[in-house]
Amino acid sequence: MTVLIVIPAVISVLALVSAFLFNRSVVAKARGTDRMKEVQGYIRSGAFTFMLEEARVMGITVLIIGAILWVLFYWEIAVAFLIGSILSMAAGFIGMNAATHANARTTHAARTSFKDALSVAFSGGSVMGLSVAGLALAGLVIVAVVFRKWYDPASLHIETRYLFGVKSLGVNFIRGALIVSAYSMGASLVALFDRVGGGIYTKAADMAADMVGKVEMHIPEDDPRNPATIADNVGDNVGDVGGLGADLLESFIGAIISVIVMALYIFVGRGNESIQGLIRQLGLTAGLNETTYWWVFIAPLMIVAGGLFSSLLAMLYIRFSKRQEGMQQVLMNATRLSAVITALTTFLFCWLSPLGWNILGEVILGLAAGIAIGFFSEYFTSTSYKPTRELARMDQDGPAVGVTEGMALGMISTFLPVVTIAAATVISYELGGLLGVAFTAMGMLSFVGMTVAVDTYGPIADNAGGIATMAELPPEVRERTDKLDSIGNTTAAIGKGFAIGSAAFAALGLIAAFMWSAIGTADKVVQPQLPIVGQIAAQFSPSGSPIMVGAYVIAGLMLGAMVPYVFSALLIRGVSRTSAILVEEIRRQFKENPKIMSGEAIADHKRCISITAHGGLHKMFLPAVIAVLTPIVFGLIFGRYALGGFLVGALLSAIQLAIFCGNSGGAMDNAKKYIEEGHFGGKNSEAHAAGVIGDTVGDPLKDTVGPSLDILIKLMSVIALVFASLFPIFPVFM
Amino acid sequence: MTVLIVIPAVISVLALVSAFLFNRSVVAKARGTDRMKEVQGYIRSGAFTFMLEEARVMGITVLIIGAILWVLFYWEIAVAFLIGSILSMAAGFIGMNAATHANARTTHAARTSFKDALSVAFSGGSVMGLSVAGLALAGLVIVAVVFRKWYDPASLHIETRYLFGVKSLGVNFIRGALIVSAYSMGASLVALFDRVGGGIYTKAADMAADMVGKVEMHIPEDDPRNPATIADNVGDNVGDVGGLGADLLESFIGAIISVIVMALYIFVGRGNESIQGLIRQLGLTAGLNETTYWWVFIAPLMIVAGGLFSSLLAMLYIRFSKRQEGMQQVLMNATRLSAVITALTTFLFCWLSPLGWNILGEVILGLAAGIAIGFFSEYFTSTSYKPTRELARMDQDGPAVGVTEGMALGMISTFLPVVTIAAATVISYELGGLLGVAFTAMGMLSFVGMTVAVDTYGPIADNAGGIATMAELPPEVRERTDKLDSIGNTTAAIGKGFAIGSAAFAALGLIAAFMWSAIGTADKVVQPQLPIVGQIAAQFSPSGSPIMVGAYVIAGLMLGAMVPYVFSALLIRGVSRTSAILVEEIRRQFKENPKIMSGEAIADHKRCISITAHGGLHKMFLPAVIAVLTPIVFGLIFGRYALGGFLVGALLSAIQLAIFCGNSGGAMDNAKKYIEEGHFGGKNSEAHAAGVIGDTVGDPLKDTVGPSLDILIKLMSVIALVFASLFPIFPVFM
Repeated sequence: MTVLIVIPAVISVLALVSAFLFNRSVVAKARGTDRMKEVQGYIRSGAFTFMLEEARVMGITVLIIGAILWVLFYWEIAVAFLIGSILSMAAGFIGMNAATHANARTTHAARTSFKDALSVAFSGGSVMGLSVAGLALAGLVIVAVVFRKWYDPASLHIETRYLFGVKSLGVNFIRGALIVSAYSMGASLVALFDRVGGGIYTKAADMAADMVGKVEMHIPEDDPRNPATIADNVGDNVGDVGGLGADLLESFIGAIISVIVMALYIFVGRGNESIQGLIRQLGLTAGLNETTYWWVFIAPLMIVAGGLFSSLLAMLYIRFSKRQEGMQQVLMNATRLSAVITALTTFLFCWLSPLGWNILGEVILGLAAGIAIGFFSEYFTSTSYKPTRELARMDQDGPAVGVTEGMALGMISTFLPVVTIAAATVISYELGGLLGVAFTAMGMLSFVGMTVAVDTYGPIADNAGGIATMAELPPEVRERTDKLDSIGNTTAAIGKGFAIGSAAFAALGLIAAFMWSAIGTADKVVQPQLPIVGQIAAQFSPSGSPIMVGAYVIAGLMLGAMVPYVFSALLIRGVSRTSAILVEEIRRQFKENPKIMSGEAIADHKRCISITAHGGLHKMFLPAVIAVLTPIVFGLIFGRYALGGFLVGALLSAIQLAIFCGNSGGAMDNAKKYIEEGHFGGKNSEAHAAGVIGDTVGDPLKDTVGPSLDILIKLMSVIALVFASLFPIFPVFM
Repeated sequence: MTVLIVIPAVISVLALVSAFLFNRSVVAKARGTDRMKEVQGYIRSGAFTFMLEEARVMGITVLIIGAILWVLFYWEIAVAFLIGSILSMAAGFIGMNAATHANARTTHAARTSFKDALSVAFSGGSVMGLSVAGLALAGLVIVAVVFRKWYDPASLHIETRYLFGVKSLGVNFIRGALIVSAYSMGASLVALFDRVGGGIYTKAADMAADMVGKVEMHIPEDDPRNPATIADNVGDNVGDVGGLGADLLESFIGAIISVIVMALYIFVGRGNESIQGLIRQLGLTAGLNETTYWWVFIAPLMIVAGGLFSSLLAMLYIRFSKRQEGMQQVLMNATRLSAVITALTTFLFCWLSPLGWNILGEVILGLAAGIAIGFFSEYFTSTSYKPTRELARMDQDGPAVGVTEGMALGMISTFLPVVTIAAATVISYELGGLLGVAFTAMGMLSFVGMTVAVDTYGPIADNAGGIATMAELPPEVRERTDKLDSIGNTTAAIGKGFAIGSAAFAALGLIAAFMWSAIGTADKVVQPQLPIVGQIAAQFSPSGSPIMVGAYVIAGLMLGAMVPYVFSALLIRGVSRTSAILVEEIRRQFKENPKIMSGEAIADHKRCISITAHGGLHKMFLPAVIAVLTPIVFGLIFGRYALGGFLVGALLSAIQLAIFCGNSGGAMDNAKKYIEEGHFGGKNSEAHAAGVIGDTVGDPLKDTVGPSLDILIKLMSVIALVFASLFPIFPVFM
């Protein structure tokens, strides 16, 4: 094992220590009045109750899958899987813990100073950002060091294991590749649960609170009389904080391990003449031998360590910035700063390594593509630009036109991001083949620490506003927290673009790794490989039979493209059904106890929290089962080529749907806000009523469906990667 | 040329003569009161004005493209293209002519007898059904006979033409294949204009009429005081009649010509050893030689002639049925009858031919899959089943929940149809390779005459109801026409399923034909071909460069999958923007002339008609340009392999979106109707208000976007097929 691994190890420890310090600095602040403490206590305990219950469900699932991995493969695989899932859960918990500490403290700070409030909120976000990136990197270092034997180039080989001693049930794999894949799979599985469960929770509570509170009872957002107010605020933490953290941790790991898996398979096959052509195409100046192998292996760890280090610098810049005004500029500067420093550290790595400069190009391409996609999201969803303003104008023609236009906006907004992703795919492929695509994905995610920090800062500020209203603080406090919230929006839009763009790239990397390993091990030698779709049907025998597999690939593409639709439908229904039950409960409370409305009695918040939690946990199961089982069942029946088609189909469909849902929902939300600012009649106008309906339609699309789709495609791909060796090459009945 | 061609020739003439007789029987009926004649006159002239204006736009476009085809290839190609487009326009005109004759006559018949009304309406539909299938078949026979030289097996070969005499700009093709492809392209292009232009027209008028009439002025549907009422009724004719006819004509031709094109390329390549393996796989008992070639060539013409004959029998069965009650049963029986007779005539063909029985299996598979997909559409959108009733129940929670649920319903409804399409793809492939897939598409469409007749019958009944209300006839007349409308719904739902299923299959057939010809002619010999996706990246050279094309295929898949979204967005916007202008106009008329509301003055219908027509013509242009130019530009820059990816991506995306849009819209429409029947509070309840909003959102999805997507994928595929030989093999800059 190369000594360079010390660098990512040190940086991950540094990040985790910094996270601890940031957390301590937050906890040291005062929490304000008793009422604030009380509200914060409710939110914290509600969030923890849900996350613990969710962890129980996940824990059981993880143990069962871990046991299956042990039986099928080796204990190392199961252990790596467990490490991945535990770290992912930990990331969610640490972030949520910090966020629920920071919320009331942000409110309290906002009573005296805007700048202090921002500092507390951003410190809370930083804890999450540093934990996500630090834990992911630390976990990878641990896996690499503990299982170093399986990465040693001298002993790297494709091994065969006969299941239950039956010779016809042999599976072929490179153990080191399987270990990192299982690690990634653990993180993905937990992320899906977190995103789907948390996403359903947060939107069901939000919808129900708005529907009864705003529409029926005409009381404002976060009014303490509304029994669902606390549940709504809990939702911000479990969905937007916990779910987001696990999500980006998973993307980050997926992007890194697809580089490692491909490197292992290319190295093992390097003796093959055709593979040598491929190696030249990777753009590695020194080719691939036992020395450069280590450089390729360590490259992703070094580059993301650089990204993590830059994120830390950017956070410190924000934390200790002396500026009182123009904090939005500070946030943007910090984001740019971390991107630039990441590029510089990558430059340093490429300069020191014998691998040449193509990797630098790929990483910079990833950073640039991510920022571009982020800007496009902002363009389509921000009230500063034409599309959302135009949508607000159309809201004047009523809710039907508003919703229809919102959908059209989301559909048309797929154009620029997809062109960017396609162009980046082609360019990175020219720079370094499929490995180049994986490096680009990794580049996009390398400064994930900063992205997560900014994205988490938003819900903390949101919660702080909720506490201000619930604790009946003077209106200027709420105004300050609202301003806090709004200045994070631009950077948060960029973060969303990153999430979608990187999901597409990471999934492409994982599918590529799947095809390498699935077809590569088929004949116990690594065969010359075709690029992805080529690989899917590269088999060709003029004599007859195998050509038939082509129809199965087409069937796989179609079925794969269908899965994201069914998955999305289940999520939407999860939200609306849970919300419907909650609406009944809120109405019942207002009806049975009129003193709640007059403020003489306290609403039963706990019951609302428990109903929402039950809904979230209950409705997250079927979508998760679909994500886990469809690739396995499909692969077992139809074989590896057809499964390749299935994954590509799912990827294509999910990219479009995720962009459509994210931007439709975002624009409808902001169009409503734009109207509330006084345009087209302002609050209580007809346009506003239409805007509120559009917002409610768009909310589950942007906060539940979109982000979950990002995970779905990566989880399905990594599951295919782990179980690849179990699947037949061709359909079983052929 | 085989003498058997006399059979399809005779049957197409028989169909056209029957259409003429049906039309005469309709025109012979009385039109009722003066007011009815007046209203019918407005509708007829409005529809003709729009269709003629549309024909002018199409005519210019068609002439330009025809000239380009002549310059690039030969005059035969341009002539075939013109024949295809003229026949497609003719089908639209004949159907619309019959429908606008039949509407008032149906109303008049409904004044005395329900049975007579049905007979008139269905005769009107039959004119359209027989014209569509008869013209398509006649056109194919003409093309085959006039250009018979280019189908003669003795002289069949791949030829090269040097463009402008420049040797490096050579194009390779089989001229006979290009002729039928151009014929199909002409039909597709006109169909797209008809569907998009008519679709925008009909929904813009519908939305605007409802928004001002029902919502603001509280006057009923089709009230003569509403200035947009006539435009709304014109829309039913230009969208649902004209658009539908051109659409199915185009599917029908596409499915037939993909069989012929593939047969030509396989035959030319039969000397190649690898192709012989493929020929065995086609399941043709006698293999492929100069005799069986003619049988394969004639097979699609014979089978659809059988389907057309069965449709005619089924129509006569309905026309002369003596039953007074249970007409829904009669319609269903007739549909089943025509399917069974089509299977029987195919059986007869297979029995007489030396080709074996696999073709029979493929045709029956097509019929069965079409009926199954139709049933699934019905299940998800009919008020007789749970999903739509459940949606109506959710409408009680307000418009946001209703729309969200409607979207979820549409998304989840993709499951069964896509599984059916995937399974049918695999089975037909096993039966006869890609040629088997094309035969299955053709089987699904073979009794298109009957499908079109039933689908056209609906808008005629709808129009008849409009005339009854506008001419202020007694309410029982309207009740009878409403009943007429509703009994066609079940069969119409099956028709919609056929449209989507057959579009997917026909596009698959066309893409397959594209890959055969694009890669086949690349080296001036037909190479052994891989199935579709395999073909896309079948090139493989261990030495380096060509492998890069893989990334372009992926980029093509992504960009292709994006096109249907952007296309759909433009259509939705076309509807909402046109509708918004119309809303202003209606409001203006009511405001400036209060006598319109009191019935003392007549509204200015003509202005509304001209605004809607202008919107439809204006907004149809950009989507059409996208459909025509994207495959050409993409192919010219990125080459044939990448274009294959682009087409597959578009197909995958369009199938899901079309099913989603169709079923979401259908269910939201029917949920509203279910509430109007008195469920969940009935008319004027909150659930009803939500249902109306859902219906308005769903209308453009189901009647404009869904059907246009069906054409989009076929048009793009057939354009690729025609221009294939112009494109480079690999990206130009590689």
